[in-house]
Amino acid sequence: LIVPTQSPMPSDRIAIAVDTLGGDFPLEVPIAGALRAARKGGFSLVLVGPQERVEQTLARHDVTDLTIEIVDAPDQVGMDELPTRAIRKRNSSMRRTIDLVREGKVDGGISGGNTGALMAMGTLFLRTIPGIDRPAIASRVPRIGGSTLLLDMGANVVCSAENLVQFAIMGDVFARVINKRENPAIGLLNIGSEEIKGTDTVKQAGEILSKLPLNFVGNVEGNDIYLSDVDVVVTDGFTGNVALKTSEGVAKMITTLLKEALLSTTRSKIGALLVKPALDIMKEQVNPDRYNGALLLGLSGVLVKSHGGAGLDAFTNATMTAFELAKGRVVTEIEEEISHMAGGMSAAQDEPASED
Amino acid sequence: LIVPTQSPMPSDRIAIAVDTLGGDFPLEVPIAGALRAARKGGFSLVLVGPQERVEQTLARHDVTDLTIEIVDAPDQVGMDELPTRAIRKRNSSMRRTIDLVREGKVDGGISGGNTGALMAMGTLFLRTIPGIDRPAIASRVPRIGGSTLLLDMGANVVCSAENLVQFAIMGDVFARVINKRENPAIGLLNIGSEEIKGTDTVKQAGEILSKLPLNFVGNVEGNDIYLSDVDVVVTDGFTGNVALKTSEGVAKMITTLLKEALLSTTRSKIGALLVKPALDIMKEQVNPDRYNGALLLGLSGVLVKSHGGAGLDAFTNATMTAFELAKGRVVTEIEEEISHMAGGMSAAQDEPASED
Repeated sequence: LIVPTQSPMPSDRIAIAVDTLGGDFPLEVPIAGALRAARKGGFSLVLVGPQERVEQTLARHDVTDLTIEIVDAPDQVGMDELPTRAIRKRNSSMRRTIDLVREGKVDGGISGGNTGALMAMGTLFLRTIPGIDRPAIASRVPRIGGSTLLLDMGANVVCSAENLVQFAIMGDVFARVINKRENPAIGLLNIGSEEIKGTDTVKQAGEILSKLPLNFVGNVEGNDIYLSDVDVVVTDGFTGNVALKTSEGVAKMITTLLKEALLSTTRSKIGALLVKPALDIMKEQVNPDRYNGALLLGLSGVLVKSHGGAGLDAFTNATMTAFELAKGRVVTEIEEEISHMAGGMSAAQDEPASED
Repeated sequence: LIVPTQSPMPSDRIAIAVDTLGGDFPLEVPIAGALRAARKGGFSLVLVGPQERVEQTLARHDVTDLTIEIVDAPDQVGMDELPTRAIRKRNSSMRRTIDLVREGKVDGGISGGNTGALMAMGTLFLRTIPGIDRPAIASRVPRIGGSTLLLDMGANVVCSAENLVQFAIMGDVFARVINKRENPAIGLLNIGSEEIKGTDTVKQAGEILSKLPLNFVGNVEGNDIYLSDVDVVVTDGFTGNVALKTSEGVAKMITTLLKEALLSTTRSKIGALLVKPALDIMKEQVNPDRYNGALLLGLSGVLVKSHGGAGLDAFTNATMTAFELAKGRVVTEIEEEISHMAGGMSAAQDEPASED
């Protein structure tokens, strides 16, 4: 059922707006992924993009069981377009997606487009939650038996201690609401587990965090992201982005070498056939597609960034994440937790070190 | 042939001092590793540690073909001892090892002990090369077809643009002298390949580097450490340490999952036997032991830090690295290159941006 633009959506269902022009496979992947997610999660969709082309793509799917609106947005934000330039495109699919979130016409939005532009527009038009100075990009990375939430992944190259503390609170909410962890373990990324190491900013953030009602486990190192059972790892956007990209590089290198090794001899090729089912199960455990969807946490609205190169499964998962963030009322939860902790934060900062 | 302490070494051979008390396996591993390296490289050894215990350990080896001195140093620097405390131990094996380098009695030193203490003592007693403000810890990480030199890995949590530029010059010398690269490609670790991204410090370092006679390839991202063919990646000690530890975490996680997968079913176990020879060849390619030995670059003397948990192979390789640094006269080479580029550096900094 394709209902005309701007018609009312069923008010009792969650609705997610999808930027259909974002990512490396515009229209095809965002639309197919969104449809799959909507069917799985039971939510409504608003597909944002050039109306005719969206309709043409939709026509290739059976969508009789779904509630879908189309919002016309003819313009596209380029993947390499400067955020300052992208912001001026009033009729871009990205801008209209964010507008729908801002106007409360949907409960969340998703885009696979230009991260910098999405972040800039999200911050400008949605604004941050009161008490949050800067939004953060949060990503989940797979680890044995679960995932670790990492933030910030690049929204803020330089962070104050207060920024890091706010990120920790947002991470706590995410881990509770989305990962259903009762008392999420929160670590501060540092270069040694000893308190003496690290920058002044990190040390100061650690001091504040240790006084807040959070399960703050102290400093963690890069390897702990993957080998410990910490739920949330907090860092500045520069370090976080380097950690994430480095992880991708190592994983890619090992995978490439592994494939080459398995195909290197007749003997190994036969062995490869035998181990394949076991390796497939393993690969699924650490498949980054499972956790596709960077979360723009701290904004007064749900906004998820899918990986630009996401395929169908990955885009479906990112759309599900937007739905779960909306359903879990993550924005309200962060608002409440930050206001609840605001007293503690200023008290922690004001307290003289000697009274520790 | 065990010659008495302080006797003259053959002056035409390179001599390396070995802190025999450093690392998790004192005496045994450093001595056995040093002997193997000395035999391989054809250099002399000065074993620094408690004389009697060093002699006892040496007695279990046939060393008739080697030139070895023992320098008595009864005290040990603890792996968790504060650098400020460790510095005061005048008779520690670490301190005496550094003294031998400073006094020119050996051409280089190696220790598997406390990194912070080694760095602090090295800086205090060896001093930095003229023109180098701060030494850096450099590490090599394996990548397909070679290795990448990363620096700084944790000596300096906060770095100026000038520090980063000096690290680049030191990395260039290392890659030329040790890795025999004619015109090493040098990248600056950043969070995007676009020039607009990153911190002001990184941007400023990039501007200076682009004007120096180096093969500066611009910004690189975390994944490029493992997937590109850049020879040297320059970053501050905080980011570098996180990148290195994160890499270790990812590699360990994948290895653990891989082992579990291969042993998970009868079918996969049979397959594992068939693929094992191919996997062993692959493992050797990315074996971190091959590149054991963090280099304390920028000091007026060769000082190598072996991984504390290093086994025999790893310690042997780290000792070989100390020998190669000494043989390649890396300290002199850095001195010359930094003085050669000093003019370029100040010119680059003074130049107004409009003339770029």
